[in-house]
Amino acid sequence: MTRLLHQPDPQLDLVLERIVDVPQELVWKAWTTPEHLKPWFTPAPWKTIDCEIDLGPGGIFRTVMRSPEGQEFPNLGCYLEIVKNEKLVWTNALLPGYRPAPPPAAEVAACGLFLFTAILLFEQHQKGTKYTALVIHKDEAGQKQHEEMGFHEGWGKALDQLVAYMKQH
Amino acid sequence: MTRLLHQPDPQLDLVLERIVDVPQELVWKAWTTPEHLKPWFTPAPWKTIDCEIDLGPGGIFRTVMRSPEGQEFPNLGCYLEIVKNEKLVWTNALLPGYRPAPPPAAEVAACGLFLFTAILLFEQHQKGTKYTALVIHKDEAGQKQHEEMGFHEGWGKALDQLVAYMKQH
Repeated sequence: MTRLLHQPDPQLDLVLERIVDVPQELVWKAWTTPEHLKPWFTPAPWKTIDCEIDLGPGGIFRTVMRSPEGQEFPNLGCYLEIVKNEKLVWTNALLPGYRPAPPPAAEVAACGLFLFTAILLFEQHQKGTKYTALVIHKDEAGQKQHEEMGFHEGWGKALDQLVAYMKQH
Repeated sequence: MTRLLHQPDPQLDLVLERIVDVPQELVWKAWTTPEHLKPWFTPAPWKTIDCEIDLGPGGIFRTVMRSPEGQEFPNLGCYLEIVKNEKLVWTNALLPGYRPAPPPAAEVAACGLFLFTAILLFEQHQKGTKYTALVIHKDEAGQKQHEEMGFHEGWGKALDQLVAYMKQH
């Protein structure tokens, strides 16, 4: 069973909650299959050009994003909890295999790398799926940085892309 | 099924592997029940005076150790993977509920707090249980610090205490 261990903390967490008209199983597929993740994961004109998924506790979740100018940004995460169709948890605070991740170098941090855990909840809903993305940060600075980078717009636009893409697949 | 995602790295990891003449189920009980953890968890004359366990992914694993001089050292961790009787994974790089833990303050780090994940494997063996504790660190400095604190002696002595205690329970 899924369980949510804490209420979101407005100082530390960011939440995107929306009803989407795509079945739960397709939202799951979009998040857990590289082939179906790459087309929607990064708000255009950014692209996700690579993705590696080992869908088990401790498994790798790696993506590479490319900016419109051609700069590449790798992201490396570790899956924590997988409840098929319902809940997916991953973090960049641990490397794959659970090793604590090195703290980001100052110059990397300036490019927006910071530590967080993403808790994704997908619930059946009469209109399709209730989609909740809860992103929990180490501290207020991380939350603020993520918010100012455009969390709500970015994750929201990516979700629009997910919906549009999965309706065709 | 349990799976080990990587071979131990001698520069980053510490391993204690031993056959103990206690059944796998009792080793599990010793690690997952506060009542049965406190008596053995800390090498005497140190004591474990408090323990809180919520045995599920993201659940709390909290202990408080007391030095012979009476100083108290709280430890806060988060369970990652629980395979009954076989595998237990927890880390102090995440707080309970998966929030990335703040990096240790310099003065706390000097007292020995550092980030690691503990992977405990218990396998049935003709003489009892094959016990493997794999502790994986963020970097070589963390591994070295843990080793110099007396990892092998400390975890080994705690395991002796576990065996002696569980034989009576």
